Amino acid sequence: MIEIDFEKGNGLIPVIIQDALTHEVLMLGYMNRESWQKTQETNKVSFWSRSKGKPWVKGETSGHTQEVKDIYLDCDGDTLLIKVTQIGGATCHTGYRSCFHLRHEEGEWKISGEKIFDPKEVYGR
Amino acid sequence: MIEIDFEKGNGLIPVIIQDALTHEVLMLGYMNRESWQKTQETNKVSFWSRSKGKPWVKGETSGHTQEVKDIYLDCDGDTLLIKVTQIGGATCHTGYRSCFHLRHEEGEWKISGEKIFDPKEVYGR
Repeated sequence: MIEIDFEKGNGLIPVIIQDALTHEVLMLGYMNRESWQKTQETNKVSFWSRSKGKPWVKGETSGHTQEVKDIYLDCDGDTLLIKVTQIGGATCHTGYRSCFHLRHEEGEWKISGEKIFDPKEVYGR
Repeated sequence: MIEIDFEKGNGLIPVIIQDALTHEVLMLGYMNRESWQKTQETNKVSFWSRSKGKPWVKGETSGHTQEVKDIYLDCDGDTLLIKVTQIGGATCHTGYRSCFHLRHEEGEWKISGEKIFDPKEVYGR
């Protein structure tokens, strides 16, 4: 039986989040067994925050949760791809639609992409 | 100046590969500074193979290289998204278009997606 390989990444697997409708890649986060379980139970994406060292429901502060539409595992069993509906239209805490809004142009990273909300209004800071 | 954060992942960053035309997510690999440099110089995607512990040019055996079209960095500077033209039409060594060909259905992983080539013909095994 095919299973997710949590051991390879010391209990964590990278999870690619893609917009189910536009196919835009929105972000990459990490899950442990617990966040994977919670994601399935709630149908909303849950992660493990490496920087904060604790579980994290995407959108718990902003309200911009991610509704699970489809889940895929890769051939090695060590990466997940989840297609979601992004509530609020934007994933990034900076207000951009995607976290991948820095484009490589002539050796530099230039801001690219659409700003959907003002972080000050959403997070109050 | 914005730079890639190689330190967070002990010298490696995850790299999402997306088909520039179809927007399908094809695979996730890892790069170190050297593979990032080589990718820019050759305009073909190079990785660091964690399982083999050595550099790896995607498609070096099969001929199914990935031509770089666009490169994005995420807001934390710790993940890359590269849009590519997939030579040969398929990314996965199993012959499927995408490495993410296992779909989560009623608690199980079911094969999904299109098989483009026969691995035996391409790899001779």
